[in-house]
Amino acid sequence: MSIHHITLSDVSSENARRYPDTVAVIDDEVRLTWTQFERRVNQVANVLTDHGVGRGDRILWLAQSSHRFLELFVATARVGAMICPANWRQSAQEMAFVIDDFDPRVVVWQAEEIGDAVGAARDLAGADAVWLQHDSTDADGYEALVTAASDTAPTAGEVSADDPLLVIYTAAIIDRPGGSMLSHRNLLTMAATTARITGTDHAAVFVNSGPLFHIGNFQFESLSTFLMGGTNIYVRRVEAAEILQLIADEKVTAAFLMPPTIFEIKELNKTKGLDISSLRAGAFTPVWGDALPADPNLWARQSGGFGQTEVTGLALLRGFGEPGLGNGGRPSPFTQVKIVDTDRNEVPDGEIGEIAVRGETVHLGYWNRPEVNADRFLPGGWWRTTDAGRREADGTISFLGTMTRMIKSAAENIYPPEVEGALASHPAVAKAAIIGVPDAAFTQSVKAVVALNEGASATAEELIEHVRSQIASYKKPKSVEFVVELPTVNGQTDYDALDAQFGGGGYPGKTDITQTTG
Amino acid sequence: MSIHHITLSDVSSENARRYPDTVAVIDDEVRLTWTQFERRVNQVANVLTDHGVGRGDRILWLAQSSHRFLELFVATARVGAMICPANWRQSAQEMAFVIDDFDPRVVVWQAEEIGDAVGAARDLAGADAVWLQHDSTDADGYEALVTAASDTAPTAGEVSADDPLLVIYTAAIIDRPGGSMLSHRNLLTMAATTARITGTDHAAVFVNSGPLFHIGNFQFESLSTFLMGGTNIYVRRVEAAEILQLIADEKVTAAFLMPPTIFEIKELNKTKGLDISSLRAGAFTPVWGDALPADPNLWARQSGGFGQTEVTGLALLRGFGEPGLGNGGRPSPFTQVKIVDTDRNEVPDGEIGEIAVRGETVHLGYWNRPEVNADRFLPGGWWRTTDAGRREADGTISFLGTMTRMIKSAAENIYPPEVEGALASHPAVAKAAIIGVPDAAFTQSVKAVVALNEGASATAEELIEHVRSQIASYKKPKSVEFVVELPTVNGQTDYDALDAQFGGGGYPGKTDITQTTG
Repeated sequence: MSIHHITLSDVSSENARRYPDTVAVIDDEVRLTWTQFERRVNQVANVLTDHGVGRGDRILWLAQSSHRFLELFVATARVGAMICPANWRQSAQEMAFVIDDFDPRVVVWQAEEIGDAVGAARDLAGADAVWLQHDSTDADGYEALVTAASDTAPTAGEVSADDPLLVIYTAAIIDRPGGSMLSHRNLLTMAATTARITGTDHAAVFVNSGPLFHIGNFQFESLSTFLMGGTNIYVRRVEAAEILQLIADEKVTAAFLMPPTIFEIKELNKTKGLDISSLRAGAFTPVWGDALPADPNLWARQSGGFGQTEVTGLALLRGFGEPGLGNGGRPSPFTQVKIVDTDRNEVPDGEIGEIAVRGETVHLGYWNRPEVNADRFLPGGWWRTTDAGRREADGTISFLGTMTRMIKSAAENIYPPEVEGALASHPAVAKAAIIGVPDAAFTQSVKAVVALNEGASATAEELIEHVRSQIASYKKPKSVEFVVELPTVNGQTDYDALDAQFGGGGYPGKTDITQTTG
Repeated sequence: MSIHHITLSDVSSENARRYPDTVAVIDDEVRLTWTQFERRVNQVANVLTDHGVGRGDRILWLAQSSHRFLELFVATARVGAMICPANWRQSAQEMAFVIDDFDPRVVVWQAEEIGDAVGAARDLAGADAVWLQHDSTDADGYEALVTAASDTAPTAGEVSADDPLLVIYTAAIIDRPGGSMLSHRNLLTMAATTARITGTDHAAVFVNSGPLFHIGNFQFESLSTFLMGGTNIYVRRVEAAEILQLIADEKVTAAFLMPPTIFEIKELNKTKGLDISSLRAGAFTPVWGDALPADPNLWARQSGGFGQTEVTGLALLRGFGEPGLGNGGRPSPFTQVKIVDTDRNEVPDGEIGEIAVRGETVHLGYWNRPEVNADRFLPGGWWRTTDAGRREADGTISFLGTMTRMIKSAAENIYPPEVEGALASHPAVAKAAIIGVPDAAFTQSVKAVVALNEGASATAEELIEHVRSQIASYKKPKSVEFVVELPTVNGQTDYDALDAQFGGGGYPGKTDITQTTG
C-alpha cells in the first residue's frame, strides 16, 4: 500500500495551506506567516542540500534561541537529517565533546555573547564541518545564503516518520553525555498528547523562553503550538520586562517560565498594569495566583508527571485519569509502562523496580552508542529509564528516585525514597536522606542521615524502630547520622556529598550498566 | 532499533493497568471493568486462535450492537486479524455478497431478530467459515466457548500498527461495495484527533446507539472513549426511553443520536424529569436547545467537516482554526489535502478539482480490490476521494459534491453545486438542481431543474443570464426545466430521478474509474 506517514515537515507544509495568514513565528522584528515561513524553510533546506546534507546527516545548532532554529529544525526534517540544539552555556571543552561526538556536517553558530566559547570549542574539536554564522551580515553568513536560495522545496529523497530528527544530549548515565534521538513520530505524538491536556489550539501563541537544548520547552508548548498551527515567539534570553510586554502585545497563551521569572513579571506588572489575561497559568497556577484568570485545562488542574528526554519528556501525565497515589501520573494514551526487577522481569503491581516505557514516545536510542542502546532496550521495545518506580493500585506510577541510588542489602533491593518517607513521618524529623554504605558481607547496608526539627529530639534506635513499624524490616537503617542541615544542590539533597561525608558507595545500579555493556 | 508502535490491543492492555477499576463496557446486565474486560479479550483471542485465526485472517460480525463486538474487535487486534461489522439491515443477498467477498474464517452471528436473514445468507454464500452464535446459550455457542477459554493472552506473532483491523463496506463506487480497510494507526489517530475537539477524557461514557457498520459511531465517540479509558455502553437497538434512562443512570457524556431520537428523548423527559446534564450536546447543540447545559468544546462550537470511511471518517474538521468559507473545514493535524484535476495534477488554490487526502487517517485500500486501489492511490500516498472540492483563500476546503456528477462540457469541468449556488441566489428560485445531458458535440450540456418560490416567476433566459453574471459563462445552463418540487431521497435531491426524468447521463466520473482500471 502507498500509505504516507506524516513528518514534521509535512505539518509545516500543510499549515501553510490550512492557516496561510496565521503568524507562524515572531522574533523581535521578524514576523512570518505560515506561508512566508514555509518559503524560508524551503530556502534553508536548499542551503542544507547545497552543503551536501542528506538523510541521516547531522546539523548542530550552537546558538541561543532564535526564529532561525525553528526554520532550520523544519528544514532538517524536510531533508531527512537530524538537528541538535547544543547547550550554549557549556564550557568550550564540553561543546567540543558534542561537536566531535555528533560529527555534524553543518554547524550553525552565533557570535553574539557566546562567540568566544564557540571559537574555542571549534579549535578544540577535530570534526570537519561547514560553519555558518546565523547572526552575521556577511555575504557568506547564514542569512545571506538563505536569502539567496530558491524557495522551492528541494527534491528530497524519502523521509520516514520514524527517522531521527531532534537530538538532545542528556546527562552522563555512564561515562559521558549521550544524544537522545527523537523521531518525527515521537515529537508529533508528544505534541498531540500535550495539546490535549494544555488546551493548545490554532490560536496558541507560545514564547520559547526555555532552553532549546531541553525537552521541556519543546513539550510545554513549542511543538503543540507548531502542530496546531499557532505562533512561536523566540527571545534570545529570558528578560521579565520583555516577556511581560510580549504577553500583552501578542496575546500570548503560554510561555516557558520558572517561578523566579513569574514573580518578577507579576511584580513589574503591578506598576505597568498590562492586560496579560490571554496567558494560561497551567502548571504554575499556584505561582501566578490571582494575576491570571483560572485556567480550566487539565494541565492546570492536574499538572506534572514523569518522564525524561529519552521518552520525549513527560510520557506519563497526571492529567490522564482521576488524581491518584503515584506522583508520576499515568502513561499517556500512546505509551505503555512496566516495572521490571534487576533481572528485567516484570514485578507484580505494588512492588518497586525500574520503570520501563514503550510506545510512540520512546526515542530511537542514543546517537552513536550501540552498546548502551542494546542494554537499555528490552525485547518488545521496552526502554529502561534507570528510574525506580512502583505501580499503585489505582493505576498511577510512583517515581522513587534513580536506580543508580538503589541500595543492595544481601538479596534485597532498597529504594531510598521509600525509607526516607517512613523517616519523614516521625514527628521529630525535619528531613532525612538514605545512603548505602559498602558492607563486605551484605554488599551494602542502609544508613540514614537525619536533620531533626528545631528543639525536637529522637535517638537512632527510636528512628530505626519507627521505620521498622512502617515498612519491611530489611529496609530499616542500620545506622543513623544526625546533622543540622542536609547539603543540597539545585534545591535537591546532594547525595554525592553525603556519600563523600559518610562513606556511601557500592551502589549496584551505578556499575550495573557498565558491567553489562563493557 | 526496537521501537514498538502502539496497537489497539496495547491500548486495551494498558487501560487495564492505568484505569483498573474504571468500567470499560456496559450492556444491559453486563458491566466489566477494564481489568475484567481485558480478561474477556484474552478469552476471545484464545477462541479465535483455537479456530486457526492468525495475522491477516478475517472475522465477520453479523449481528446487532453488543458488548461482544468490542471484545471481539480488541481480540481481533490482538491476533493481528481484521473484523468487519456487517450491515444487519441488508437483504440476505447483500449479506451473502459480503460473506463471499470478505471470506471470513469466523462469522459471529445473531439469531434474535435477524436470524432468518442470516440463515438465508449463509445458505446463499459459498464461503467456508466457522459460524459462532453470540446470543446462544448452547454449549457450542460463542459465550460457552469464551467462558471456557483461558484468560491468558495467546502467544501471538508480531502485529503492526499499520496492519488492517477494521473493515467497513462502503457504497458501490464502481460495480459493487468494497470493504475499506482501516489500520490500528488510522483508528487511533482518529480517536486522538476526535478527543481533542469533543473533550473526551477518562470520565467519558458513550452510548453506542449508532450502527456498528458505520464509521460515524466509531468516531463520535466510541473510539476516543476507548482510547482515553472511558466507558462504552452498547444498546441492541435505538429506543429513546432506554437511552434517556441510561443517560441519567450512567452519567452518559455522549451518544450517537439523530435528531428524531433527540426530540423523542426531550419530549419523554418533560414528564420524566431525569437529570441528563452530564450529556455533551456536541454537534447537535441546536437540536438539544436548553435541554442540556452549554457544551464548551470545539465540536459544539464548530461542528462538522468532510470525510468518508476511506479517510477514517471526518478527516477534515471545522473545529480546527477559525470558522472559514469552506463547508468541509480544514485537514486535521495528521492529515494533508490536495485538490487535483482529472489528469491528477494539483490545481491552484481557488480552483475546483477532486479532493485527495494523505496521512495517518488514509485507509489501506479496499479489501481484495487491487486494481481499484492502484487507481485511487496517487504517488506519495494521496487517496482520491471521488469527491469534488476547492481550497478557499482562508485555508478551508469546500466540498462540492461527488466527482461522479461532474459535468464535462467540451474541455471544461462543471460542478453542479457551484451552478446550483448561483441559481439559488436568484430571488425567484426556491430550489435548483443541475444535471448533465449527453451532447454529441460537447460530451454533455448543462441543464437546470428549478422549483420557483410560490407566486414568483422567472423565465429560463432570465435565470441563465443570472448565472452568467455570477460565474464563468461556460458553466451556465443551456436549458431550464421548471418543476413544482424537486424529488428527494433521504432528504437530499434525488439526482438519479432527475436524470431519468430529464435525460441526464454521460457523466465522465461515473465511467472514468472503470475505464482506467478496466
